[in-house]
Amino acid sequence: MGRNPQLNAEGKLTHLLTLEGLPAEVITGILDTADPFVSVGEREVKKVPLLRGKAIFNLFFENSTRTRTTFEIAAKRLSADVINLNIGASSTSKGETLLDTIDNLCAMNADMFVVRHSESGAPHLIAAHLAATGRTDVHVVNAGDGRHAHPSQGLLDLYTIRHYKRDFRDLSVAIVGDVLHSRVARSLIHGLTTLGAPDVRVIAPATLLPAAVGALGVRAFHDMRAGLAGCDVVVMLRLQSERMKGALLPSPGEFFKHYGLTADKLALAKPDAIVMHPGPMNRGVEIDSAVADGERSVILPQVTFGIAVRMAVMSTIAGN
Amino acid sequence: MGRNPQLNAEGKLTHLLTLEGLPAEVITGILDTADPFVSVGEREVKKVPLLRGKAIFNLFFENSTRTRTTFEIAAKRLSADVINLNIGASSTSKGETLLDTIDNLCAMNADMFVVRHSESGAPHLIAAHLAATGRTDVHVVNAGDGRHAHPSQGLLDLYTIRHYKRDFRDLSVAIVGDVLHSRVARSLIHGLTTLGAPDVRVIAPATLLPAAVGALGVRAFHDMRAGLAGCDVVVMLRLQSERMKGALLPSPGEFFKHYGLTADKLALAKPDAIVMHPGPMNRGVEIDSAVADGERSVILPQVTFGIAVRMAVMSTIAGN
Amino acid sequence: MGRNPQLNAEGKLTHLLTLEGLPAEVITGILDTADPFVSVGEREVKKVPLLRGKAIFNLFFENSTRTRTTFEIAAKRLSADVINLNIGASSTSKGETLLDTIDNLCAMNADMFVVRHSESGAPHLIAAHLAATGRTDVHVVNAGDGRHAHPSQGLLDLYTIRHYKRDFRDLSVAIVGDVLHSRVARSLIHGLTTLGAPDVRVIAPATLLPAAVGALGVRAFHDMRAGLAGCDVVVMLRLQSERMKGALLPSPGEFFKHYGLTADKLALAKPDAIVMHPGPMNRGVEIDSAVADGERSVILPQVTFGIAVRMAVMSTIAGN
Repeated sequence: MGRNPQLNAEGKLTHLLTLEGLPAEVITGILDTADPFVSVGEREVKKVPLLRGKAIFNLFFENSTRTRTTFEIAAKRLSADVINLNIGASSTSKGETLLDTIDNLCAMNADMFVVRHSESGAPHLIAAHLAATGRTDVHVVNAGDGRHAHPSQGLLDLYTIRHYKRDFRDLSVAIVGDVLHSRVARSLIHGLTTLGAPDVRVIAPATLLPAAVGALGVRAFHDMRAGLAGCDVVVMLRLQSERMKGALLPSPGEFFKHYGLTADKLALAKPDAIVMHPGPMNRGVEIDSAVADGERSVILPQVTFGIAVRMAVMSTIAGN
Repeated sequence: MGRNPQLNAEGKLTHLLTLEGLPAEVITGILDTADPFVSVGEREVKKVPLLRGKAIFNLFFENSTRTRTTFEIAAKRLSADVINLNIGASSTSKGETLLDTIDNLCAMNADMFVVRHSESGAPHLIAAHLAATGRTDVHVVNAGDGRHAHPSQGLLDLYTIRHYKRDFRDLSVAIVGDVLHSRVARSLIHGLTTLGAPDVRVIAPATLLPAAVGALGVRAFHDMRAGLAGCDVVVMLRLQSERMKGALLPSPGEFFKHYGLTADKLALAKPDAIVMHPGPMNRGVEIDSAVADGERSVILPQVTFGIAVRMAVMSTIAGN
Repeated sequence: MGRNPQLNAEGKLTHLLTLEGLPAEVITGILDTADPFVSVGEREVKKVPLLRGKAIFNLFFENSTRTRTTFEIAAKRLSADVINLNIGASSTSKGETLLDTIDNLCAMNADMFVVRHSESGAPHLIAAHLAATGRTDVHVVNAGDGRHAHPSQGLLDLYTIRHYKRDFRDLSVAIVGDVLHSRVARSLIHGLTTLGAPDVRVIAPATLLPAAVGALGVRAFHDMRAGLAGCDVVVMLRLQSERMKGALLPSPGEFFKHYGLTADKLALAKPDAIVMHPGPMNRGVEIDSAVADGERSVILPQVTFGIAVRMAVMSTIAGN
């Protein structure tokens, strides 16, 4: 059996590729590291010198200004030099292969790649190539690959849940919406399972659930009211309309009626249940504005914690 | 009557949205603050640490490399971290609303937004939202909104006029060209009026003047020679051909004949009159090259002063 | 006879426009300056403060993420402030001339322009304009102009050759492929000739050789095996398929058969011959993967040296 490709010879995290198979102590270690970084964002001078003089490349093969921005801010708060490469527009169009691009950037003494790619597995491919060519000093962070994983989002979701609920061991967490296409859902489920959350539910129409959803260790609900009953955490997913092909879905209005989160449906969860969403939200499609902006919403704190968690990921893997 | 949305509870400038209604002492304060920043641009190390560790977001919903660059340089000279967001290409296309984008960036601990938008009022909307959500520590600079205002350009124009003419109280200023579509003209007129310039003239064909131009406190001329007679300052406007719909205008050649600034027409102004232009120039359309590059042109000093004025704006509002 | 436009009144390098006509001691001076910068890239903190507070503009009128990135990294390692301008998308589209753009950026106290342009001579035009307007403190680096020159690539090629072969005076260097359209080939040939390499060969089909290739002081070969015989250095050129109009060429497969570098053909060169390529490579078109990744390939060290050489160029001209 091969070594976990995310860990180095000492068993320390050297890449963040997926939460699947990541030991609980590694996940908890990142969340603990993120704690003091939250306050860095509140300081007069929002900077720490941990990655000064390091070269971090944002390699975005798939456009995402939002995610790219969070990593750029996190890297700059760590005092790194950040270089944004929109790869779709450059060497790929000149016929250079992905791995030739990586080799070139390594030859420029890159320290870290933050990789977003529409193909599942692209960050793993890069990490495997770095290992094969002896580049143990270069690190990869998966910023979302295909439908596969979005581990930094999963970690910030875990951080948020821990912040408000303290302990995972008694929690009921409901994840609602387009689970099928959601790397966010996949990463969060792996993280929750690893940290011992006993009751993880997914709520979606059958067409938006993966075939083997049971194998993930979750319970599936098609009825939202049944699924929300008594839960501590409600995680709404973005309806990835741009990623869905064909007519899997009824109209947005119809979807909202059955799977949109309203105050009415939220009343079925525990009285202190929190509401999360990875953003950007489709108000009136998967979530009602009154809930999104309501007192049980922790959607904006998720964003704040997301910067701290990404600082924790980058400083952890660069330090190992 | 509501408080001026640009001023905080202490009456200090907290956003720069428009020069309309801004007290003379606030305008003069910015011009005075800009003075020492001019020399920063001439130093060996062109940096001061005033905004170190602050996160400034350039939110350009309308493309303008030129204006974006001036703000980026000003922010970097103040040692801030600058993040450029071309919003047209990102979350807006994913259906996120403007205010959700702002909330998200605030959650990332943004300190300032430099906003360019094709819709008049967008920066005001953002400022009002920040006030409504208690974000008194986040600042907005309007970098041009629709036909409405371009206050940093207005301030640099005022700085330039004060630099060369010292006192506004005896000045005749002629603004020539596409006044109708020009936020530059509007901001400059408000500034000149506030600082006490007694004679502000606009010179344009009737189709390029706003209907209620008299209400701005200016005199309108359709004949350029009459309008230029005896003036101290000539401000040429860019012919915003890309913004004009339909056939309001004759050919560029015809326009130049009547409203283009030539040495011949400039001779009607005072012998020491200065010539200004916000750029980029259409040489041979609104201004003759010989005048643009002539000894009475202060078009390039405007650019230099523009960096210092933007540094003054950003450091002033961040410090209040 | 005019002064070399790249040298200032003291005979020091003030712009890098072309290697043609550059004195050997200037070239050697840059290569010597680059030496210590190679180790900067291997440090924990990859930065030196040589250009702190300087404003360097990447003016890319022709898109090249790869080259832009190398200059951006080099400038950031020198602690400069870097501003990337994709000029195609901005003021040019608003009808501003190239020289008006330059005047504006100078008025913003620019210190250096790194210029990429599809038109041969654009960087010279800018340098001449700076001289004519007395801007002796602003510097130009040609990052590739049309088919004319790519001097920083030429210098990094020279650095690489010197690193592995020490002395130019006994060397046979073969340059293979699309010499006609290659500014890389042109710059390298000028550099090799100046540094005294006695035997420079170009190998290409007649349709990919300039008409007056002999005037460059090289020997032309149409047969690759004859041209490679006994050489010390093999420089493969990228097949610039995107730049070639019409049917000058057979299929990529046919080209590879005659002019692609394979282990078989490389065996005709000296046993310790090195293989170079400016990148990005077309594997299987101009070079076989086994050779590109083989032990005689120094293609990735070229990239590493390229950062150091660009740091040397920028710090040299800014210091003169």
